Amino acid sequence: MLPPLRTSAAHHRLLAQVVHPRLRPRPAFQFNSPSVRFNTTTTSVPPPSAPPPPSPPPRRLFGRTRTAARWTGYLCLSTIIGITVVTTGILVHDAFTYTDRHIDRVPISPLALNPEKGGPKNLPIARVQVDDEEDEENKKLAEKPRLVIVGGGWGAMGILNTLKSGDYHVTVISTETFTTFTPLLPSAAVGTVQVRTLIEPIRKIIARLRGHFVVGKAVDLVMSERLIEIETTTSDGKKANVYIPYDKLVIAVGSSSSTHGVPGLETCFQLKTIGDAQAIRRRIMDNFEIASLPTTSQEERKRLLSFVICGGGPTGVETAAEIYDFCSEDIMNYFPKIIREEVSIHLIQSREHILNTYAEAISTFAEAKFQRDNVDLITSARVAGITPECVIYTTQNPSTGQTEQHTIPTNFVLWSTGIAMNPFTQRVSNLLPNQVHKKAIEVDAHLRVKGAPVGEVYAIGDCATIETSIVSHFMDLVEEADQDKNGKIDFGEWEIMVKKIKQRIPMAGDHLVECKALFDMYDSDADNNLSLNELVMLLEEVGKKITSLPATAQVASQQGKYIGKKLHKLARQKPVLDANDVPPVARDESVSGPFKYLHLGSLAYIGNAAVFDFGKYSFSGGLLAMYAWRSIYWNEQVSMRTRALLMIDWVIRGIWGRDLSRL
Amino acid sequence: MLPPLRTSAAHHRLLAQVVHPRLRPRPAFQFNSPSVRFNTTTTSVPPPSAPPPPSPPPRRLFGRTRTAARWTGYLCLSTIIGITVVTTGILVHDAFTYTDRHIDRVPISPLALNPEKGGPKNLPIARVQVDDEEDEENKKLAEKPRLVIVGGGWGAMGILNTLKSGDYHVTVISTETFTTFTPLLPSAAVGTVQVRTLIEPIRKIIARLRGHFVVGKAVDLVMSERLIEIETTTSDGKKANVYIPYDKLVIAVGSSSSTHGVPGLETCFQLKTIGDAQAIRRRIMDNFEIASLPTTSQEERKRLLSFVICGGGPTGVETAAEIYDFCSEDIMNYFPKIIREEVSIHLIQSREHILNTYAEAISTFAEAKFQRDNVDLITSARVAGITPECVIYTTQNPSTGQTEQHTIPTNFVLWSTGIAMNPFTQRVSNLLPNQVHKKAIEVDAHLRVKGAPVGEVYAIGDCATIETSIVSHFMDLVEEADQDKNGKIDFGEWEIMVKKIKQRIPMAGDHLVECKALFDMYDSDADNNLSLNELVMLLEEVGKKITSLPATAQVASQQGKYIGKKLHKLARQKPVLDANDVPPVARDESVSGPFKYLHLGSLAYIGNAAVFDFGKYSFSGGLLAMYAWRSIYWNEQVSMRTRALLMIDWVIRGIWGRDLSRL
Repeated sequence: MLPPLRTSAAHHRLLAQVVHPRLRPRPAFQFNSPSVRFNTTTTSVPPPSAPPPPSPPPRRLFGRTRTAARWTGYLCLSTIIGITVVTTGILVHDAFTYTDRHIDRVPISPLALNPEKGGPKNLPIARVQVDDEEDEENKKLAEKPRLVIVGGGWGAMGILNTLKSGDYHVTVISTETFTTFTPLLPSAAVGTVQVRTLIEPIRKIIARLRGHFVVGKAVDLVMSERLIEIETTTSDGKKANVYIPYDKLVIAVGSSSSTHGVPGLETCFQLKTIGDAQAIRRRIMDNFEIASLPTTSQEERKRLLSFVICGGGPTGVETAAEIYDFCSEDIMNYFPKIIREEVSIHLIQSREHILNTYAEAISTFAEAKFQRDNVDLITSARVAGITPECVIYTTQNPSTGQTEQHTIPTNFVLWSTGIAMNPFTQRVSNLLPNQVHKKAIEVDAHLRVKGAPVGEVYAIGDCATIETSIVSHFMDLVEEADQDKNGKIDFGEWEIMVKKIKQRIPMAGDHLVECKALFDMYDSDADNNLSLNELVMLLEEVGKKITSLPATAQVASQQGKYIGKKLHKLARQKPVLDANDVPPVARDESVSGPFKYLHLGSLAYIGNAAVFDFGKYSFSGGLLAMYAWRSIYWNEQVSMRTRALLMIDWVIRGIWGRDLSRL
Repeated sequence: MLPPLRTSAAHHRLLAQVVHPRLRPRPAFQFNSPSVRFNTTTTSVPPPSAPPPPSPPPRRLFGRTRTAARWTGYLCLSTIIGITVVTTGILVHDAFTYTDRHIDRVPISPLALNPEKGGPKNLPIARVQVDDEEDEENKKLAEKPRLVIVGGGWGAMGILNTLKSGDYHVTVISTETFTTFTPLLPSAAVGTVQVRTLIEPIRKIIARLRGHFVVGKAVDLVMSERLIEIETTTSDGKKANVYIPYDKLVIAVGSSSSTHGVPGLETCFQLKTIGDAQAIRRRIMDNFEIASLPTTSQEERKRLLSFVICGGGPTGVETAAEIYDFCSEDIMNYFPKIIREEVSIHLIQSREHILNTYAEAISTFAEAKFQRDNVDLITSARVAGITPECVIYTTQNPSTGQTEQHTIPTNFVLWSTGIAMNPFTQRVSNLLPNQVHKKAIEVDAHLRVKGAPVGEVYAIGDCATIETSIVSHFMDLVEEADQDKNGKIDFGEWEIMVKKIKQRIPMAGDHLVECKALFDMYDSDADNNLSLNELVMLLEEVGKKITSLPATAQVASQQGKYIGKKLHKLARQKPVLDANDVPPVARDESVSGPFKYLHLGSLAYIGNAAVFDFGKYSFSGGLLAMYAWRSIYWNEQVSMRTRALLMIDWVIRGIWGRDLSRL
């Protein structure tokens, strides 16, 4: 149960004391403020060229007042001039923007749209987009290689922001018309920031590249004909499928939540999209409103005010903290006391600690914070099932070792644990026999989908995983390294091989640092040569140690930028590559090395405090850490518009609190 | 078809020229701006008490530079001090607001909630609200008379803002948890302003009165036991009904749209709530996105981009203009040209002119504006039917007089014509035998529901109509005026009667100005007396001339304020009234006269222009009128929060345009 933190009246007094001075004119303009008075006594210098003025009677007070008045006058004048200039600027801007002038129609020959049919399913193939013949620039672009990007998240934005205009005929396909700043979704779920702040229309982003946007869902891929099948929805809700041809395809569709085989997940919330955040917000407000009704029993009230979060990763922890803040800062001021008394927040984590991918100090800080806030932290617990009325989980009794089952009655469950393939990723994976990974599409170090025609299909972000198996490159590696072709690898050849492995799988680099020690360890017969058997064992062991990259925005964004740069270089160097007749595999590798992930640190916002983990050093704390957290996220925004909106949201929330409307 | 107004590139250049100066630091802080340079040459006065400084060589340039530098220094210093003070203020505020301190739980005895059952349907009766025993103040309030307000619109806000804290135990019942600034709904429907800007949680508004809020729908009324039946929804979507007892009830539930018997209205949009505005916005964006798909035929594209508005009142006209603005300012920059070419907007009006309740000049202005914008204005037309694919309407051929039928294929129809009773209003009307009005609950001049126990039930806003029939008061009027009791009314008695009529039905006053002429006209036998027959005819004729008040926010707000003031006075004067044993009817009339509507003028926003109709004078125009319109609406906002948000919305839209996301 949450304790009520402050009473409504006290909060209001606080606001009245603290906020109002901010709204007053800035002290610099008030003459009576000491700083300015200080200025007046020391500034005055006679105009050097003018004769000394007739000396006035030494009435200091009078002189001072006159100077003061003059100062005030000038300051006022400057202010007025400033305001006038700004206002004029706004007026001029508005006069041009909000014109009700009528401009004559530009004649245009509408492009008749009867796409030819084809492909395995005999569907329309959109070889020409409706705006391909709009003007000269577009006509020129229509002849460029076709780059199709499926998805509109961090990966896609990474590509779009690094591509140069004129490189490709770009088409973005996404089910949502906007891109979302996902790290702030927990804040949006309780109204700390507005959902519109986190989104930017994809059409605005692709305008720079004169790209095309198709709202729809990728459902199938015909790699032999280079067609991707898109399911679009007509105005009467029917499905209409269409093929979109590509020369280069980037799959960046993200993932869905892993179910871990838990029954009843359909009653849970996820937090992956703006729609999820809106639904969560609606449910939270619904719960509070229904709990306040006179028709609600005390037992039901308790259930309605119990919020359960499954998953102790950043999303789960941030959401729990945001719900706590929302209750303690906003709900308590406007809802009956009985409501505030009954609120409970539960966080169920399967591991021993929350935020277990972060540094230990951070994990400890977060746990201590939740402890103080009376957030119910349930660690080393497994969720056994979820019903519309409750969450069932099991823990192991540390003394007896027996499994115990517990139930939390609740009307709100957030499921934020692990990722799984969505239907399109599954389909792509099924199409390719050598795709065996269960959670994502396997790509090589150049982010090319394994098994797909080389240099045509890439996958990035949550839907992709970079291969970690070195053994699968065994034959190639031996061929490249075994220079004396004796079927054995001596140390010199091993050093060559390590270099080659690092090129193919950069993530293996960390585990190949002690390359002499490894060689000696696996050279079991100590003949200073690794037999092929010994080599396989070594490579398998190293491969196991490589952990795949986490499914985070940071990884997706870096992969997007990597692909964007690569594609740009490929486009610019095409004439040279064509002239030299470079084969597809070598092309990718000739313009850039394999993808290398640079971890910039992790951060999380935990209830008016924040934690940072930059690998070598980590820190956590209250207000200042929160400011640091804010400034990093502010800086990461996709556009100046969202940056301005985010700042405004924080200020509005600071002054008036969160919006309590159920919308 | 709409002409594209400006090309994207031109628009961007314009923005680049115009917006950026605004973002530069204000000129008042730049030394080189002429205004400041002018200041430096005239400000300098020697410190009066100090001896004249050793005269420097007359190097004007150098001296000037030094003074300038000093000036710049001081200005910078002031600025820095100002910023420091403001920043410190923000930090202090944040330090108090965003604290992660833990405050101990305040012990509270939870009020067990087992409401007794009763009333005709044996439902729970919420005699005690969950927060009635929260503290001393609330306990005191629980003993006050119970005021129940049904509805959360303009009428309810009028009451809540005029009531004083401590007058009543106030309960507000509404289906939405917020109040909406309805006049800006057309702007919200296309994203010119955000929906969150237009709403304010009712709980925040009633906090001042320590009122209670119940989310639910009024369904029935038991006047004999003073109970109102509320339908609430449980968390599993079931209905749970409850009685809420009242001493004073105010019905302010608004209205639904009139169907005028047109079939197919369920496929139309209305524009009465935030939900409506959101649905319209989603549909508009859907239409544009689907029209851009390669799977869409040219015919279907045309249909998707055809927007039909039925009703030429302010809502219809404003929405048509907002859609036009949206297309010409935002859609055209980011959607294929073919889309922009095919957009058409149709406005169907049954009368000869749009905005026919406004002054003629305004109507003409609006029509000319739409003409220029190629908005298809269809006047003197009747909508015959609406299907999901099209709108069918009929017009009369002026030459042949024959009725002709027309069809507009469309996927967007807004229905904004006339009002009708919603189910609760209908139910109240059916309960009272003397309620015969078809569109609203009839109330007397004191806004008391006719036929309900006097002084207990009031109705205001769109759901109420003030009686205009003078004849229904015939017997009372004759009794009061016929002082010689001869069954005839002479002129002296007629003058008394006119006074009494004006008291009972103030709206009749305008039609009783020429009271001598009326008397003479209806005194058909010229005996200087009106027989009762003659009197009935006169009163009926005058009654017909009275037009009922329009269903506008202005009327609802004024009625709310009137009821709020009346209720406040009744509460404060209760001891006196009780002591004098004043009967219920006289109580209302003793504290205030009948409701008088003061028309403050009408205004509408028509595509970057605005029109005003203040009765005696009216004006219309572009930018400046738009500013006037904005400032009036800005001033009318319900809270400082919405005022700030509205200003921000306008600025954001000015700089970055509207949001194109389909959400």
